[in-house]
Amino acid sequence: MKFDLTKEFLREITEKLDRQEYNLVKKELSELHNVDIAELIDELDDDYGKILFELFEDEDSAEILIELDEESRETVLEDLSSQEIAEDLIENLDSDDAADIIADLPSQKKVEVLSHIEDIDHASDIVDLLAYPENTAGGLMAKELIRVNEKWSVLRCVREMRKQAEEVDKVYAIYVVDDHDVLLGTLSLKKLLLTPEKNLIKKVYNEKVISVKANYDDEVVANIMDKYDLVVLPVVDDLNRLIGRITIDDVVDVMKEEAMEDYNKASGISEQVDSSDNIATLTRARLPWLLIGLVGGILGAQVMGIFDIESHIELAFFIPLIAAMGGNVGVQSAAIIVQGLASNSLGMDTISQRLLKELGVALLNGLICSGLIMLITFLIGYPSSISFTVSISLMAVIIFAALFGTFVPLILDRYKIDPALATGPFITTVNDVLGLFIYFMIGKLFLDL
Amino acid sequence: MKFDLTKEFLREITEKLDRQEYNLVKKELSELHNVDIAELIDELDDDYGKILFELFEDEDSAEILIELDEESRETVLEDLSSQEIAEDLIENLDSDDAADIIADLPSQKKVEVLSHIEDIDHASDIVDLLAYPENTAGGLMAKELIRVNEKWSVLRCVREMRKQAEEVDKVYAIYVVDDHDVLLGTLSLKKLLLTPEKNLIKKVYNEKVISVKANYDDEVVANIMDKYDLVVLPVVDDLNRLIGRITIDDVVDVMKEEAMEDYNKASGISEQVDSSDNIATLTRARLPWLLIGLVGGILGAQVMGIFDIESHIELAFFIPLIAAMGGNVGVQSAAIIVQGLASNSLGMDTISQRLLKELGVALLNGLICSGLIMLITFLIGYPSSISFTVSISLMAVIIFAALFGTFVPLILDRYKIDPALATGPFITTVNDVLGLFIYFMIGKLFLDL
Repeated sequence: MKFDLTKEFLREITEKLDRQEYNLVKKELSELHNVDIAELIDELDDDYGKILFELFEDEDSAEILIELDEESRETVLEDLSSQEIAEDLIENLDSDDAADIIADLPSQKKVEVLSHIEDIDHASDIVDLLAYPENTAGGLMAKELIRVNEKWSVLRCVREMRKQAEEVDKVYAIYVVDDHDVLLGTLSLKKLLLTPEKNLIKKVYNEKVISVKANYDDEVVANIMDKYDLVVLPVVDDLNRLIGRITIDDVVDVMKEEAMEDYNKASGISEQVDSSDNIATLTRARLPWLLIGLVGGILGAQVMGIFDIESHIELAFFIPLIAAMGGNVGVQSAAIIVQGLASNSLGMDTISQRLLKELGVALLNGLICSGLIMLITFLIGYPSSISFTVSISLMAVIIFAALFGTFVPLILDRYKIDPALATGPFITTVNDVLGLFIYFMIGKLFLDL
Repeated sequence: MKFDLTKEFLREITEKLDRQEYNLVKKELSELHNVDIAELIDELDDDYGKILFELFEDEDSAEILIELDEESRETVLEDLSSQEIAEDLIENLDSDDAADIIADLPSQKKVEVLSHIEDIDHASDIVDLLAYPENTAGGLMAKELIRVNEKWSVLRCVREMRKQAEEVDKVYAIYVVDDHDVLLGTLSLKKLLLTPEKNLIKKVYNEKVISVKANYDDEVVANIMDKYDLVVLPVVDDLNRLIGRITIDDVVDVMKEEAMEDYNKASGISEQVDSSDNIATLTRARLPWLLIGLVGGILGAQVMGIFDIESHIELAFFIPLIAAMGGNVGVQSAAIIVQGLASNSLGMDTISQRLLKELGVALLNGLICSGLIMLITFLIGYPSSISFTVSISLMAVIIFAALFGTFVPLILDRYKIDPALATGPFITTVNDVLGLFIYFMIGKLFLDL
């Protein structure tokens, strides 16, 4: 049932393609889902990938195409004429997938492909969709949907649905509109099955329908579909006229990207990269944090130069401890707030309520850690003045980092800046340098550095 | 359309409930989705929440109940008798939601509620579901689904669907089974609408159906639904008999939890907590990383004690720099691998191929950072021996951390241990201490510490 691509299988297929045993390959792959075949083509060398792709036709090849990664898709498309792309592939795709494919083509080819689409409605749907920016509701929606008029009877509704169903692959919802195409509500399949054929739609449809406008941000769309547990969401224009629908599978991708972006920010990776990107891209994505860390490190060195460390060299031994603990606490605090904001679980708390709570957590953790460090350094045999200074500093740094880590994302959010920046390099580096400064200020106070 | 809960609205509702203007409140809330009403109850004080909840009945109150957070749900349920819970709420819920509610009841009440469910099939479905562990396919599935026999005609199929639809709220798929209930395939609504009434189901259904067994891990289920863009997934027993179906909205929650867990691990938070948890829970979730960091810091101090730092005190100034850079690079490298493993985008690369690529990135980043630090320390006026030692060390630490950060998650994954542990406290602390050791070894080599 579940397919796992192995190196052996890949080699086997390559060898069969080499020996031109195409029918054998097709037979062997006949049990596989098109998603798996796309994965196989992604992993094959370009030439073999092309050959394999061309073994499939019509709906299968169209479905495989949309599942390919960007690179393989380009490879596969570059040998096809505009007419082949239009007639064999685009005609077999829903408008949203078709628009995604066409959007990635070179502009010359884009026009050619569009002109070769025979179904003029399909072509016009695609052109409509190409106008919406990628990261909006419009960029996610498809034009294919089932719409029925409120004035129709159930019987007429079923008859019309039969016509429309030829265009719509999967029916998740039936939308009820008025004569001007204004979205009025939805009709569940259940109601349709259970209502006598002569009844009017207007008597049985559900008026509580959640919709979005085409210019809504895709992350807002994802939040709405998640919050209301929706599988499909209608898209309307400014006059509330039904223009499309978004299905959950496309939104799942948005959610995953969002989670990945936050994860990357927390890990100090600036662009949206993944492990398959090349060395230059990966380096570029990672360098900014390192450069900011570098500046922070140099600032840290300058801060330490102010103090007379030589007189109490043992203090230097605990720099890594203080730096690591301050950093950890800061990241923890910021991460909890960033997640709370993303999932809307912060509720109605004010900033000062959050800071107070965080102070509680920091005091508890700080007391435990400071107590331990005092005990351990004493047991190891450090001078008690050093033990004392290090534990007091640790306490102070933990409290500072916790409050700083909580405050920054909340303030960023209030000013409509992405709070996830608080887990990023700039804030963590500022946190580091200030922590170090606190450490040596306390050292100065107690040990006269 | 989209509802944003404000403090003013909350106060307004509270005041109206205080003045017992219940009809006014109900009217005001009539436009709201049940999810929003649940959110409102979550935020109201317990007593007001209870009153508000009791203004709703039947399907509405059941739907509100499943959307409440755990705390409010308990509050709302504690005043209801077992009979009320069974008849007013459980009877109006799908089996999966009903099982979730009943699973959280005290064991005495659990039995009482089950005994009060009048629909014996519903009760038996719920009892079946209670047997599956929460984080498996069985724990996610619902029993309600539309099943048709391959031997039926389309006409009979529609008639039977009409009967079954009374039990099933949302129809996303029609499952085709044989006489023994073995899952054969699916029938799309489209096919059903477009096929003449006398044709047999067996001629028109789609045999390519992806299913899971009830004991599959919920993360596997999530990956399958995501990979194949499924909205609903049938669950079968070991004889391939259809026993339930999982819908995407439940799986979206699994995906979000998974992403949150990885994010937490990367941020040094050990348990699954969020910002609304209390201080003790938050402290407990954060303490492990801090304690490991503490041990690492003390080890670091001991490492430094070995060397004669006093003779080149400037080296101490750059400890924060070396520690931060090593830490950052290690986390970046591990994060990219962890994500690659989670999203299956590592492809067919071997461990040595990954390490080689990572070495390339580390060399590039290392050269840039080392060059910069050499230049800057020279301009600031540090002795050239210090400049030289610091830049060589930085290069070495960046390369070490990159390889270590890549190697550890790959090895963990090979031995079936969660690779996200590599972004956690233990590995990052080991990385820190080893980085420090490299720094001072190089210092010893060049400066004779």
